[in-house]
Amino acid sequence: MSQNIKRILAANKEYAREFGDRGKLGIIPARKIAILTCMDARIEPMRLAGLGTGDAHIVRNAGGRASDDAIRSLVISNRLVGTNEWLVIHHTGCGIENLTNEKMADIAGESYKTSEGDYVNWLTIRDRIQSIRDDVKRLRDHPLTPDDVTVSGFIYDIETGLLAEIDCD
Amino acid sequence: MSQNIKRILAANKEYAREFGDRGKLGIIPARKIAILTCMDARIEPMRLAGLGTGDAHIVRNAGGRASDDAIRSLVISNRLVGTNEWLVIHHTGCGIENLTNEKMADIAGESYKTSEGDYVNWLTIRDRIQSIRDDVKRLRDHPLTPDDVTVSGFIYDIETGLLAEIDCD
Repeated sequence: MSQNIKRILAANKEYAREFGDRGKLGIIPARKIAILTCMDARIEPMRLAGLGTGDAHIVRNAGGRASDDAIRSLVISNRLVGTNEWLVIHHTGCGIENLTNEKMADIAGESYKTSEGDYVNWLTIRDRIQSIRDDVKRLRDHPLTPDDVTVSGFIYDIETGLLAEIDCD
Repeated sequence: MSQNIKRILAANKEYAREFGDRGKLGIIPARKIAILTCMDARIEPMRLAGLGTGDAHIVRNAGGRASDDAIRSLVISNRLVGTNEWLVIHHTGCGIENLTNEKMADIAGESYKTSEGDYVNWLTIRDRIQSIRDDVKRLRDHPLTPDDVTVSGFIYDIETGLLAEIDCD
């Protein structure tokens, strides 16, 4: 067992000791919100939105992109527990902003001695605002997105902690 | 603008006011960890593992499954900022545990009057422990996963807050 994992399990024991009433929370997100955002280590999706444990589903991937898997997750979220307000949150200083599909395939290819990277759509970001609009549009237009769901887009400023809504109409 | 979004933006202003030094954090996760876990609203991935802001990449989807998109994210995480310890964390009481691909396609089909759901692999979970082993194995064996990455699997108990490692060897 690695040092990292030993540390995590020790910290988790402390966490569980102070768990309190959280163990009684039900499966349904109290605020009926689902957030799609980036995996970036600096983003605290619940805290930055003033949400508490049990309030919202959080879907995260590289870039916070509306990938097929994000759609799978959001549709399950709606059908199983009724989230009907989906927020797409991208952020400033995202690692995939200065990449292209080709560059990422090259990086993967060089490092791994495999051409598998050529067959992946890396969903890199060229224009920060456009990617939000594209992803909101994809979610809104997707045949599996129900009519009662609203989808809106936001940019999160990694240096100030501020969230701003982006006009996606 | 919905009431939910008004509330979120108001809470975010408070959050940003107390942002402090977090705005100076760099893009590289301090602990070189990436966690793949479920979108469930009751899971607080960083807190349950004793991690702080900026410590780890967090990838989340329905079930915490090692989907193609999770692999895209984890590979970017490794190539761009060097995370080399990947943790797969599934949990008790997961919403997709009692579903099958067929049932989820039916639910989606009934609700949306579209057959699109038939073409989605919903990545439902039949056996809680087996799904962890399958996902750890997929990540370990994937051609794009570099040799210096370790992948381990955990089950998180939603009622006690306790994390336990699952033997995936």
